[in-house]
Amino acid sequence: MPARPGTTQIGFVGLGIMGAPMALNLIEAGFSLKVYNRTDRPRVQEVVDAGGERVATPAETASGSDVIITNVTDTPDVVEVILGEDGVLRSAREGATVIDMSTISPRVTRDIAAALNERGVHMLDAPVSGGDVGAQQGTLSIMVGGEQSVFDDCLAVFEAMGKNITLVGGNGDGQTCKVANQIIVALTIEAVGEALLFSSKAGADPARVREALMGGFASSRILEVHGERMIKRTFNPGFRIRHQQKDLNNALITGKELGVPLPVTALVQQMIGSLMNAGKAESDHSAIANFIEDMAGTTIAGD
Amino acid sequence: MPARPGTTQIGFVGLGIMGAPMALNLIEAGFSLKVYNRTDRPRVQEVVDAGGERVATPAETASGSDVIITNVTDTPDVVEVILGEDGVLRSAREGATVIDMSTISPRVTRDIAAALNERGVHMLDAPVSGGDVGAQQGTLSIMVGGEQSVFDDCLAVFEAMGKNITLVGGNGDGQTCKVANQIIVALTIEAVGEALLFSSKAGADPARVREALMGGFASSRILEVHGERMIKRTFNPGFRIRHQQKDLNNALITGKELGVPLPVTALVQQMIGSLMNAGKAESDHSAIANFIEDMAGTTIAGD
Amino acid sequence: MPARPGTTQIGFVGLGIMGAPMALNLIEAGFSLKVYNRTDRPRVQEVVDAGGERVATPAETASGSDVIITNVTDTPDVVEVILGEDGVLRSAREGATVIDMSTISPRVTRDIAAALNERGVHMLDAPVSGGDVGAQQGTLSIMVGGEQSVFDDCLAVFEAMGKNITLVGGNGDGQTCKVANQIIVALTIEAVGEALLFSSKAGADPARVREALMGGFASSRILEVHGERMIKRTFNPGFRIRHQQKDLNNALITGKELGVPLPVTALVQQMIGSLMNAGKAESDHSAIANFIEDMAGTTIAGD
Amino acid sequence: MPARPGTTQIGFVGLGIMGAPMALNLIEAGFSLKVYNRTDRPRVQEVVDAGGERVATPAETASGSDVIITNVTDTPDVVEVILGEDGVLRSAREGATVIDMSTISPRVTRDIAAALNERGVHMLDAPVSGGDVGAQQGTLSIMVGGEQSVFDDCLAVFEAMGKNITLVGGNGDGQTCKVANQIIVALTIEAVGEALLFSSKAGADPARVREALMGGFASSRILEVHGERMIKRTFNPGFRIRHQQKDLNNALITGKELGVPLPVTALVQQMIGSLMNAGKAESDHSAIANFIEDMAGTTIAGD
Repeated sequence: MPARPGTTQIGFVGLGIMGAPMALNLIEAGFSLKVYNRTDRPRVQEVVDAGGERVATPAETASGSDVIITNVTDTPDVVEVILGEDGVLRSAREGATVIDMSTISPRVTRDIAAALNERGVHMLDAPVSGGDVGAQQGTLSIMVGGEQSVFDDCLAVFEAMGKNITLVGGNGDGQTCKVANQIIVALTIEAVGEALLFSSKAGADPARVREALMGGFASSRILEVHGERMIKRTFNPGFRIRHQQKDLNNALITGKELGVPLPVTALVQQMIGSLMNAGKAESDHSAIANFIEDMAGTTIAGD
Repeated sequence: MPARPGTTQIGFVGLGIMGAPMALNLIEAGFSLKVYNRTDRPRVQEVVDAGGERVATPAETASGSDVIITNVTDTPDVVEVILGEDGVLRSAREGATVIDMSTISPRVTRDIAAALNERGVHMLDAPVSGGDVGAQQGTLSIMVGGEQSVFDDCLAVFEAMGKNITLVGGNGDGQTCKVANQIIVALTIEAVGEALLFSSKAGADPARVREALMGGFASSRILEVHGERMIKRTFNPGFRIRHQQKDLNNALITGKELGVPLPVTALVQQMIGSLMNAGKAESDHSAIANFIEDMAGTTIAGD
Repeated sequence: MPARPGTTQIGFVGLGIMGAPMALNLIEAGFSLKVYNRTDRPRVQEVVDAGGERVATPAETASGSDVIITNVTDTPDVVEVILGEDGVLRSAREGATVIDMSTISPRVTRDIAAALNERGVHMLDAPVSGGDVGAQQGTLSIMVGGEQSVFDDCLAVFEAMGKNITLVGGNGDGQTCKVANQIIVALTIEAVGEALLFSSKAGADPARVREALMGGFASSRILEVHGERMIKRTFNPGFRIRHQQKDLNNALITGKELGVPLPVTALVQQMIGSLMNAGKAESDHSAIANFIEDMAGTTIAGD
Repeated sequence: MPARPGTTQIGFVGLGIMGAPMALNLIEAGFSLKVYNRTDRPRVQEVVDAGGERVATPAETASGSDVIITNVTDTPDVVEVILGEDGVLRSAREGATVIDMSTISPRVTRDIAAALNERGVHMLDAPVSGGDVGAQQGTLSIMVGGEQSVFDDCLAVFEAMGKNITLVGGNGDGQTCKVANQIIVALTIEAVGEALLFSSKAGADPARVREALMGGFASSRILEVHGERMIKRTFNPGFRIRHQQKDLNNALITGKELGVPLPVTALVQQMIGSLMNAGKAESDHSAIANFIEDMAGTTIAGD
């Protein structure tokens, strides 16, 4: 049965920087929400103030819910909140759908889907791209893995949170797509960093170079958004270095399992490791350019 | 005096895959052209048939011309056709403007500009991005270095050939911008290659992955155009591997002179060197993905 | 009490390519052995024929033994044979010493040592270098982690198997030293590969180049042994590509935990992954040079 | 005619850190020397005090000499002192032998040899390894390219300066061998840096690790000499970072000409570029490890 604002009840686990605004968008669209977060935070209260019902365990969010959304940090966290002792599966009714919007291992995703399916619960893996701004504005790009009919039934839920919603394939393929996204994002940031630093040291104005490049084959969202951050030196997140690193580690581990060579991903992962050693784990991922700047002993802005 | 169709005479040196359609667009816009090409080719005849006057040396293209455009392969070629014995400078009148639209060294560009200026001839470096398709359709992105007033006077000439026309800075900065363009292009192709191969080996449909990624932070012209080429296995050029390599070599040599670290550019240059050893010098640069595919022993298309 | 041939009983778990000749050397030195191997192999029979008593579980090798040596493939295997249901710890008497000569994670080694110590059993981690030839000839290099007095008591045991026996530090430091060994070995093989291929393509005789280099700063055991293998094209193991890869993976995972950048190790790990995709998992690790040769489209031998 | 102390006159161009002690060793062996150095230095006076006759041009060193040795910085310098206006060739008699002991391009070496041979002058390229200590002690490793008979005639000259003297092949092959040497040296230093830093951050004593590794497959002159420098933090040269970089640039340029992939050399060249940006051009090349240490935010010595 298709989800509909007004009638569909949603469980929501994980009210982080991404999860909280996503939950708010669902409430605003007319869905009723049971929410769970491990810790107390102002943004959790904000969701409750907007009408979310706070419950004590992931399992309770599933009680009576048609759809349960999980949005937590890493692979073991997802396993815990779905399959753990007080996890979603404990209370999910047959026919309900679990949508995991975290970014985790494609392989483990397929294992979780199998465990849910065995108990008559549907699963969609639906990681997102677009950052906290996209989460707030409801313009997230959502990459979904699962069955067509389950996807169709959940479309209204996704549309409350995002704009570019694609069913990529079966379970796990949403996560695979997200890994691909993160590889491209990290490597393109690094490429833009090399190019803008080159421009700056060659005596050109990197802002005008960026503008000129936006019209040709070098144009990308990264050049537009992260290129501007490098030039204006705004490295507050956005998307954090340590989350970018988690995703590249996931890419490399899965790549090793699958026999996929990822030589530049491996090198950029080392660069990001160095930035984390330098205390930049909480900087925006556009700070990947800082590694190249440190090698040069100067910055793109020329100081 | 601003260049104008109908009155302005243009010399044009180098009727290659890019130069010939650019010359045709200038003729179609109403400019009168004297053209020079080192060798006989059907496309040279095509330009003559359209109204171009063929002459015997680069110097002769400059005779009586207001603007002389050079569009040849590499740094020494530009030096030869502008400053050589039968070069443009020999016949260029005072107040004329030489526009070099080749892709060459920023440093040598500044030397050429100085030599021209000394003789009262203006210079713009104006390399392009957009490939043969952009040249044919008059939609090239043009990155210009030089003085504002000279740029303004030549705007009608640029507008006959391109769409996104930017004065980046002084002489050499157009070439610097082009180097930056080529770094980003090559490295983004490599990144898209890693990401799509990962997707394919993980069991997802790379075409649907590409489509989903086009909506988020991973979106780029390269993902759109070259990503599709990787999936459809169309590696006919387009922009050739050996030209891409020439431009990365230029980036690395200039980077060494300037003290700009380019670690991933250096690695991708090695990959492209390997592809050239494998006989792919004439393939489209989207074939950079072939290196990763060879490492995997499979292709993005799964064969 | 110091171990002594004639009186000391040794349990030995794992009669592989390395383990079997090591066990034979212990028997020949006069130690009495209880041996366990998971599978039947001619070399297991060989050890039995030489006087080893074959038993049915790792636990039984420990029964009545003063020293128990484990020599198995990977971290989980060591955990299983020492701490598992039928593991060594089950039957090891208080005061006995477990010597793990496998190559595994330094961190897990410390966990195992703690579990053993809690039950009054000593532990030494003692991975080796020197290959199957060193194992056969009793010339292994042995890198030991643990307490000085325990090390001193086991010296006669080590001397039956190796020549260069060093107490590096406390538990885990033997394994750390082995990781360092494997990083240097893999990266030096790659370096020798680049250098000899360069020589060969530049027209020099790689055999004479190798000989000349052996006298200067470039000299190493790798240049001597693996350099000769590259020139003579003898890639039968020796030490297998897949074991080298296991050890680099261990280095990278531990490096990530510790915040140690390993940029070239990461790159060489990708190269070896490619060789494994190409069916060379069982080749000698000197075949790392094949990756560079494939990039060149030729070999060091010039064919 | 074989060179002999007492009778053979030698011209010597370039009394640098390497050249001066080499000249002193020749004088001590009984050869009579005419020496040229571009600048005044205490060490030039030292050679004169020992009996060398100082002359005003490279050409004058050749006047009446049987053998002329050149030992200058880079490829263009060698071209200048041999083929330039006041170069050696101007005064070299027919049948004399020019021995170039600089480290330069193999290709240019063959061009110089051809130019000399045309005028009846023999040529040997004979770059060295072993550093200033080797030069002082007369224990240099010498890699020679040229004809067997010319090599045989010069053996006494080489033996006054070095110990491990090898005729690698024809002209240029000595330089090719030196390129190979420098690739291995730089990459092995980097490898030792990764390994010792790993050891240190994992809690082991890098000095004991180094000692243990010296017995196995990881043993090398670099681990012995440069590994100790890293542990003791003695980065005064020795062999300078900027000379190491010059030699890697030479390797990469020649590699590009020959189609030899050098992926790790390319990466290490970038690291060294970064060290030069950080003001370490004059440090010993064992400081390559500093790049990895900077990435880690700590040193091998643990501070």
